[in-house]
Amino acid sequence: MNNKQKLIEDVNYLLANASSEELDVVASLLKAAKEKQDGQFRSYISALMKVESNFLEDGDYEVRIPIRPLIHNPLNIVHGGITATLVDIAMGSLVHQSLPEHQTAVTTELKLNYVKPGIGDELICIAKILNKGKSIYVCEAKVYNDKNSLIAIATGSFFIIRSPK
Amino acid sequence: MNNKQKLIEDVNYLLANASSEELDVVASLLKAAKEKQDGQFRSYISALMKVESNFLEDGDYEVRIPIRPLIHNPLNIVHGGITATLVDIAMGSLVHQSLPEHQTAVTTELKLNYVKPGIGDELICIAKILNKGKSIYVCEAKVYNDKNSLIAIATGSFFIIRSPK
Amino acid sequence: MNNKQKLIEDVNYLLANASSEELDVVASLLKAAKEKQDGQFRSYISALMKVESNFLEDGDYEVRIPIRPLIHNPLNIVHGGITATLVDIAMGSLVHQSLPEHQTAVTTELKLNYVKPGIGDELICIAKILNKGKSIYVCEAKVYNDKNSLIAIATGSFFIIRSPK
Amino acid sequence: MNNKQKLIEDVNYLLANASSEELDVVASLLKAAKEKQDGQFRSYISALMKVESNFLEDGDYEVRIPIRPLIHNPLNIVHGGITATLVDIAMGSLVHQSLPEHQTAVTTELKLNYVKPGIGDELICIAKILNKGKSIYVCEAKVYNDKNSLIAIATGSFFIIRSPK
Repeated sequence: MNNKQKLIEDVNYLLANASSEELDVVASLLKAAKEKQDGQFRSYISALMKVESNFLEDGDYEVRIPIRPLIHNPLNIVHGGITATLVDIAMGSLVHQSLPEHQTAVTTELKLNYVKPGIGDELICIAKILNKGKSIYVCEAKVYNDKNSLIAIATGSFFIIRSPK
Repeated sequence: MNNKQKLIEDVNYLLANASSEELDVVASLLKAAKEKQDGQFRSYISALMKVESNFLEDGDYEVRIPIRPLIHNPLNIVHGGITATLVDIAMGSLVHQSLPEHQTAVTTELKLNYVKPGIGDELICIAKILNKGKSIYVCEAKVYNDKNSLIAIATGSFFIIRSPK
Repeated sequence: MNNKQKLIEDVNYLLANASSEELDVVASLLKAAKEKQDGQFRSYISALMKVESNFLEDGDYEVRIPIRPLIHNPLNIVHGGITATLVDIAMGSLVHQSLPEHQTAVTTELKLNYVKPGIGDELICIAKILNKGKSIYVCEAKVYNDKNSLIAIATGSFFIIRSPK
Repeated sequence: MNNKQKLIEDVNYLLANASSEELDVVASLLKAAKEKQDGQFRSYISALMKVESNFLEDGDYEVRIPIRPLIHNPLNIVHGGITATLVDIAMGSLVHQSLPEHQTAVTTELKLNYVKPGIGDELICIAKILNKGKSIYVCEAKVYNDKNSLIAIATGSFFIIRSPK
């Protein structure tokens, strides 16, 4: 029996004995893996977080993720690392999209304040570029939940590099 | 056909057509879901990141994660959000474990500098408590790869709260 | 000859041989010392920086300082430490004034990005409170020069304490 | 009567009516102005703070300042802005001295945690370079008082530029 057959057996065994919450999580993990492979997301992380993004009319960039057990910390609120990932994705994507095709950017530093617990249905991050330097773009991001409560604020520096081939 | 049967069918279809990299990712996602359900990890995030941790002799706290495609950003280096999650887990767990049972802590602010790309086999985070205030503990963390290159540094503040029941 | 007479002699000697730039600096230092003693400023630092502040219509708090050699760094732009002091004064004063008389606040953490050199006639800092927690207020500040160029951004956390008697 | 005569008159009047604390502050301000003019300090700020610095055996850089009323905040502890200035001077000077003569550096971002009130006789800042990138050096600094209590910690990024002529 090859690896694939072994994995299929394992999965079937796992699923046969799974609770409905387990099934939900597994389904969402599998969906994320598929969507990354299909090129719908640029990273597994974005796929797992179900990142959705769009530009707002004023040029700000909005990134939304649903809040669910997958992204909880042990206190059952959104994991601080997920909020950090969200602001990094939002600011980094905004910078990336503002650059010509032969350039991209890497995060050099990131700072967050967590001001309210991440609870609700959704996190909504609004990112903006505050300064475009020759080498470094400085951004800020604010994270709200679907009740419009401010959950976190962040600032970050993004260093411009040549795009890898 | 109920939800579970539908999901099993979907998974089998996905797996039958999966590349070997896809199979690896799927297997690791399923394993993580199982381990969180089994109580081996306190959050799905920790399980997905395959967090392993232990105290060092000098009281510092070490948290290690393997580097693999699941935690890459679009440039195929460790996603900055994962590094942020790693330092948050390391410092937060250290604070949590230094408190009496009726107390725990939440991150109030987190600051990171990314100094080298996250490449290699493993990230190793060393966290320490720098100051224990009445309400706030201040920590620092340094992240190395398995070649002992410094990848990132972080500091954070953790606010002491009463443990939820 | 007592200390006072000795100092008066020293000052006169210094002034007799001073260049006009020296005279300006000395005059401004003396003026600051006097104004602090007269209670026009709450600290020597504020007096030396010639801090002027007022509330804006939207509740934001504005603090202005003139740019002059006294606050330059060795590159003849505003010293980064002065910009840090400016944002700390602006955010801290705003928090202090938003609290009842029996409370005040101390800075627990401060983060700055310097985005353009501090040059021009004046630095203008606009501070606002982003979140009022039970124990911690989180603020942001933006620093412009008189040409409306963004010079620096900052965020900070202020811990509420009982006012000292 | 010219400006200089007018200033000398003012100073004499101020000094004649000054308390002994006032005299001390005035004397120290005048001394600082003189020392900056004499080239003993690279900025008025450093002169006013009475910065003294030296390399330690392990390559770390130590900067010390006396604590006195001149650098107090309204609560009579060291002004947070002064602590920020101290860490900026320590890290920035260390970077500057580690570069070849045709290069210098500017602070691009600075982050501080204030962990204990700045009280005692002296603040001692120990700075080190954590990473030397092509464009950016990342440093950390820790500030103690003369009782060896940790008062503040800081990290900062310094961007390498060509020295001005």
